[in-house]
Amino acid sequence: MNLTEKTIGTEKIFEGKILSVTRDTVELPNGSTAFREVVHHSGGVCVVPLTDEGEIIMVKQFRYPFSQVLLEVPAGKREKGEDPLVCGTRELKEECGAVAEKIIPLGKLYPTVAYDTEIIYMFLATGLSFGEQKLDEDEFLDVVRIPLEDAVKMVMNDEIPDSKTQLAILKTYNLLKG
Amino acid sequence: MNLTEKTIGTEKIFEGKILSVTRDTVELPNGSTAFREVVHHSGGVCVVPLTDEGEIIMVKQFRYPFSQVLLEVPAGKREKGEDPLVCGTRELKEECGAVAEKIIPLGKLYPTVAYDTEIIYMFLATGLSFGEQKLDEDEFLDVVRIPLEDAVKMVMNDEIPDSKTQLAILKTYNLLKG
Repeated sequence: MNLTEKTIGTEKIFEGKILSVTRDTVELPNGSTAFREVVHHSGGVCVVPLTDEGEIIMVKQFRYPFSQVLLEVPAGKREKGEDPLVCGTRELKEECGAVAEKIIPLGKLYPTVAYDTEIIYMFLATGLSFGEQKLDEDEFLDVVRIPLEDAVKMVMNDEIPDSKTQLAILKTYNLLKG
Repeated sequence: MNLTEKTIGTEKIFEGKILSVTRDTVELPNGSTAFREVVHHSGGVCVVPLTDEGEIIMVKQFRYPFSQVLLEVPAGKREKGEDPLVCGTRELKEECGAVAEKIIPLGKLYPTVAYDTEIIYMFLATGLSFGEQKLDEDEFLDVVRIPLEDAVKMVMNDEIPDSKTQLAILKTYNLLKG
């Protein structure tokens, strides 16, 4: 079956600092037209920093859309065109003060496929050495260490809602146990 | 450390059919103010339909933000206030023509914690019987069956980008193997 939708028009709704919104007109596979509301975002990266002792370095951060402090792996927004690995290395340094001997890719995720262009690239960082945290001026977070096996249990028990964190933890675990 | 941000004001930017956008003014933990761009969405559910033969029923669907046909587990948007289980049961019937003897929760995910209120509830459906697919008028998708173990490999090999699908597959796999 042909599933493709063809863009007929696009209307800019909002141009913000971190996201923009368009309302596009598309032709559906059956020839009729429909609207697609699309959030445009430059994407991000997240890193699972795994210590030699088998602990993950995680951050606790207030997330405004949920009015909730969430437990996450270190992450950040990519500058337009920025290499994901460069971005991940920077966020690891800024949020946790950590430098990794080895960073390997864990794949990507599309968080919200129906209406948002964001892509997040995941990495696993090992061989860590620690210096000083260097946060952005408007960034406030606490750093904690959690054994990987405990983090996996927390994901399975629905105690870590963030999508990239859940997925990066399970992929790390599945990768290491082969 | 106090991490809480306090809402001072909110400005409605866009009221769409599937999402709305506000630009809020917040007071940061250090007393200074900042803006938060927030996408508001009523959330969704996804279901892993697992057959007695150990296969997952999946759907291939064109996803406009990526101009790409993606392989996903059946999913849908929750009506405001709708019970996630009721929504999951309906989507399973509509997209795959399937009815389940047993549906258990796999937890929730926040796809995009930094700027979007969306929450997706995940379920595992077993004891399936099949009738007719009943798609919405503007919904076009192909249904395929993939062995769970193959789906896990595809997730680990970065061949399934959708966040809810990756996570629901890994959680199903980890749950079943104990």
